[in-house]
Amino acid sequence: MTHGPADRPADRPDDGLNDRPATPTLDRVAGPADLRRMSDSDLTLVADELRAEVVSAVSETGGHLGSSLGVVELAVALHAVFDTPRDKLVWDVGHQCYPHKVLTGRRDRIRTLRQEGGLSGFTKRSESAYDPFGAAHSSTSISAALGFAVARDMGQPTGDSIAVIGDGSISAGMAYEAMNNAGHEGRRMFVILNDNEMSIAPPVGAMSKYLSGLYASPMGDMQKMAEGFEAALPGPLREHARRARQLVTGLPGGQGTLFEQLGFSYIGPIDGHDMSQLLPVLRAARTRATGPVLIHVCTVKGKGYAPAETSADKYHGVGKFNVGTGAQAKSIPNAPSYTKVFGQALTQEAALDPSIVAVTAAMPSGTGVDIMGKRFASRVFDVGIAEQHAVTFAAAMAGSGLKPFAAIYSTFLQRGYDQIVHDVALQNLPVRFAIDRAGLVGADGPTHAGAFDIGYLAALPNMVVMAAGDEVELMHMVRTAAAYDDGPIAFRYPRGEGEGLAMPDRGAVLEIGKGRVVAEGSDVALLSFGAHLGECRKAAKLLREHRVGTTIVDARFAKPLDKPLIRQLMRHHKAVITVEQGAQGGFGAMVLHMAANEGLLGGSCQMRTMTLPDRFIDHAAPDAMYAEAGLTAVDIAATAMEAAGIKANRIGASV
Amino acid sequence: MTHGPADRPADRPDDGLNDRPATPTLDRVAGPADLRRMSDSDLTLVADELRAEVVSAVSETGGHLGSSLGVVELAVALHAVFDTPRDKLVWDVGHQCYPHKVLTGRRDRIRTLRQEGGLSGFTKRSESAYDPFGAAHSSTSISAALGFAVARDMGQPTGDSIAVIGDGSISAGMAYEAMNNAGHEGRRMFVILNDNEMSIAPPVGAMSKYLSGLYASPMGDMQKMAEGFEAALPGPLREHARRARQLVTGLPGGQGTLFEQLGFSYIGPIDGHDMSQLLPVLRAARTRATGPVLIHVCTVKGKGYAPAETSADKYHGVGKFNVGTGAQAKSIPNAPSYTKVFGQALTQEAALDPSIVAVTAAMPSGTGVDIMGKRFASRVFDVGIAEQHAVTFAAAMAGSGLKPFAAIYSTFLQRGYDQIVHDVALQNLPVRFAIDRAGLVGADGPTHAGAFDIGYLAALPNMVVMAAGDEVELMHMVRTAAAYDDGPIAFRYPRGEGEGLAMPDRGAVLEIGKGRVVAEGSDVALLSFGAHLGECRKAAKLLREHRVGTTIVDARFAKPLDKPLIRQLMRHHKAVITVEQGAQGGFGAMVLHMAANEGLLGGSCQMRTMTLPDRFIDHAAPDAMYAEAGLTAVDIAATAMEAAGIKANRIGASV
Repeated sequence: MTHGPADRPADRPDDGLNDRPATPTLDRVAGPADLRRMSDSDLTLVADELRAEVVSAVSETGGHLGSSLGVVELAVALHAVFDTPRDKLVWDVGHQCYPHKVLTGRRDRIRTLRQEGGLSGFTKRSESAYDPFGAAHSSTSISAALGFAVARDMGQPTGDSIAVIGDGSISAGMAYEAMNNAGHEGRRMFVILNDNEMSIAPPVGAMSKYLSGLYASPMGDMQKMAEGFEAALPGPLREHARRARQLVTGLPGGQGTLFEQLGFSYIGPIDGHDMSQLLPVLRAARTRATGPVLIHVCTVKGKGYAPAETSADKYHGVGKFNVGTGAQAKSIPNAPSYTKVFGQALTQEAALDPSIVAVTAAMPSGTGVDIMGKRFASRVFDVGIAEQHAVTFAAAMAGSGLKPFAAIYSTFLQRGYDQIVHDVALQNLPVRFAIDRAGLVGADGPTHAGAFDIGYLAALPNMVVMAAGDEVELMHMVRTAAAYDDGPIAFRYPRGEGEGLAMPDRGAVLEIGKGRVVAEGSDVALLSFGAHLGECRKAAKLLREHRVGTTIVDARFAKPLDKPLIRQLMRHHKAVITVEQGAQGGFGAMVLHMAANEGLLGGSCQMRTMTLPDRFIDHAAPDAMYAEAGLTAVDIAATAMEAAGIKANRIGASV
Repeated sequence: MTHGPADRPADRPDDGLNDRPATPTLDRVAGPADLRRMSDSDLTLVADELRAEVVSAVSETGGHLGSSLGVVELAVALHAVFDTPRDKLVWDVGHQCYPHKVLTGRRDRIRTLRQEGGLSGFTKRSESAYDPFGAAHSSTSISAALGFAVARDMGQPTGDSIAVIGDGSISAGMAYEAMNNAGHEGRRMFVILNDNEMSIAPPVGAMSKYLSGLYASPMGDMQKMAEGFEAALPGPLREHARRARQLVTGLPGGQGTLFEQLGFSYIGPIDGHDMSQLLPVLRAARTRATGPVLIHVCTVKGKGYAPAETSADKYHGVGKFNVGTGAQAKSIPNAPSYTKVFGQALTQEAALDPSIVAVTAAMPSGTGVDIMGKRFASRVFDVGIAEQHAVTFAAAMAGSGLKPFAAIYSTFLQRGYDQIVHDVALQNLPVRFAIDRAGLVGADGPTHAGAFDIGYLAALPNMVVMAAGDEVELMHMVRTAAAYDDGPIAFRYPRGEGEGLAMPDRGAVLEIGKGRVVAEGSDVALLSFGAHLGECRKAAKLLREHRVGTTIVDARFAKPLDKPLIRQLMRHHKAVITVEQGAQGGFGAMVLHMAANEGLLGGSCQMRTMTLPDRFIDHAAPDAMYAEAGLTAVDIAATAMEAAGIKANRIGASV
């Protein structure tokens, strides 16, 4: 995929808020090979123009701007120095990959980021050979880089491997496991620690002699290079660097007491926005490395775009915005988000019960527990990117009389699955799991879909599993979870806005294992678990137009099931359709197990289970994703009519 | 539960191979409170007698002897110094808990260890107030201890919390996450690092002055205590201790570059078999600690029992044995174990295909990949206790042309679930999951049951899920997995021996998604997934006695399903019974989903799903556990007859 200036003239007429920047040097870059032919000063120009291009593109699409701006120079330098795509460049999390995408043949589509049919907001193997390992969940890159290194050493057609990982991601247990193993293996590989936190930016003047000598000096080993680097630093920085190196590489001659010596060579810290530091260090490391090397690069999130640099969140995730002012276009919500409803209801319960505590794994605002934190700071625990620890920590708190709410997105809770089984369910400890982002989530795509939690939780003895049909139900479930102390209990709810319902002063305590009948009809029954309840209502409306009487039940519980209610539904309807925002093996499966084993399936009532399909759904608006998944009101109505043996030509003509 | 000498006279007649040891001091210990009234010299006697008692008990029951012998003095000292059970003592993994169980009111049942109805081989909340947090999977103890510390600080009726964790367990990512968080929280808590690897046993003479002065000196803070400890050590040890402390606590004044400073005070190393070191150090730490403290204790696995100390595996897990000689009673297997069949078949395929590699998470012999390692050492990767890393590492290898087999027990694979979803299934990378210990596992009990993998894997798009009906099938599946390169594939098989079948020279490549008909009959069909195939054969025999014609199908695949075969079974039988060694939401659920959504459920064929029940099954022999689970041949036959509407009074009279 080449890309010339003719496709996208810098002086094209303004079609919106923002002018596109002039990018004459970047326009010469169709792919990384072009970077490798450029002078260092041209690479600096490329970086400057690339930054402007990324700001311009994200101003049109929204996305993860701050992280991407922090790695503009790094992306240029890595592609200029390493032989991508033969060398495998793995961006941890992947949301900082926009400059990388522009440089690797995707510039012509960069303004489709996170849009339906457009580029993913993360790295993705199926999108480009330059994305050798996709990501979106954190802390996987070092494991991947080690896998590529082994493959290379075993003769596969792959070159070097480079992981780029942030200081937040490297603190997760998985990254530590990988560092440990990589150090033990001792294979040549590169980990770039992209450190937003360390505010040391060594002045290039002090190091110029050292840096310029990197090539001239005879081929030394990495250890000598690192020591030379330190020696070239001015006094206070030299001491910092020495300590940092020791911390990473293990103390020289020290016993591997708590941690084994990790075995990495360490270089740094260097200024990640200074090409005159990045390029020689990367080149030297590439030339000399024999084992694993960690290069410590200091960067600034949001770098080079003033509104991002000065904003509290560094424009981590933004909507469309005006490039000149930084003002973000705000969409006016129709209803409060489920996240906010959860946070407020939790805070309300916490105010009434001092034993309620909350645990989050580095997502206080994403999960809404920050709302509780504002009133009860000492009772909200942010454990960092550490879902395994979060779950067991909560289990022990539950085991000693506290009432922990572990608020973790469905997709990230997968990281703590063994702990849910082994520490929570097996010990029957009353941890409350508040599972946000259940179902399909939109622009973040399949990596963030909350597809599997119903099944992986409902399979566990002792576990109560609920899903909120709407935001009022979520309030009830928060209170129900607070009141329930007999064992673990989970409740799931989707990303985004609620239905706009009138909210009660406080949620009610639900009877465990009881569903509620929302509407009654005599032909078919829609047995909904979770937030597709609204879609079931729409389906019932369509069915009514076909004179099909429809019962709607909000099951509330996947476990324990409301067996009397299900028996009754099967007895009095031609078809029962389960509907859930999750994969097979979840709610519908539990209903089928029960019906089969009670001998209810031989009768005249047909059953269908509507779940997410057996494929991953690409990013798009949530509604579009559910349409792709075959889970619209029309799909539901059609399935119900087919199951009940009612023919119809044009279901949903009115939709 | 008190326990006096009258119950168990030391001079009781020998009733077996081994005499019981004389334990006059231990006999005075009904519980930890008795330890707290004893002199230090009596505590040393207790430890010596406790060691003999543990050797004697395990000689009768088998179990984890080596680990338990390593912590005899530590168990006595901890209970003597801390106020258990108000203080929460958490043994990581828990298999070293036998001395602890003897001391905490369970001596009268210690010879029932791991037997049906007897004591668990691990700590277990439901067994004793002295087991505040059960375990069996590694590396959970620090998270738990932190949870207890928070609960105490929030006014719950709990005292101090103490985690005892081995040097192997602390290397897992989860322990690192917990240490990080505990250091950040800064709450008073204790982590005992039980280090089998560090061969420093500081001579007590050199430290006697320091140790005796611990009480006399004014209350200093932990930092001063640690420094004083170091100063008292002889030169070379002092340097070791200083480095170890720095490694744990973070370098003084250092930047938290890669790892944040963990924030623990460090004391040690001390000799974990010397009560004159353990007692004063624990007492002083308990008196002075204000924040998290790590006490580094060096122990010897198998300590004090010569056959264990001199054995290569330190008697990690033993059967019954002769105390005098150490000779273990060996059971003669009837057939090779599934583990061995896997290891041999893998090695055979690896010999033919140099791109095959194997990954294990600290279980080379448990999984059988050590067999391949003996021939192809450079192609077998033991990554340590690091299942998260193991899966993603394998994913990257698969992404670059290698054929990785990730050999991980079902229960431990739960630790890598997110990585299976996010790195393997979503990217459709051909990682081969060899899942040993599927189903119920016997003496290791519910913590080790492989109950959930069918469901949590079959829910994932792109995943192929197989289970071996017998050991020949396992050979086929190893070869099938080696040959299949279109995406991820998993095959599960149980603990223990195969059926004793004649083995082919090499496995065959199975057609993906095709089951096999094992026997044909006209009344009912048993649709078996996995190693309960033998039980289905027995059930068919029982049914034949009742003149019920039985088809037996070995499904082989839970995903993709053999839909034509299932349709045919439903068309030609009065009942189809799915049988699997796993929880609801697995194979049976997949069959029901298919049957429901194809509209097959309204006919005359009844369906039943036989799965593990919705409760955890306590340890016992596997057959006894399956009986408790309702999954015997009699249960299967009875279910089939009930479903088919055939009455019978005495099913299984012949069994």
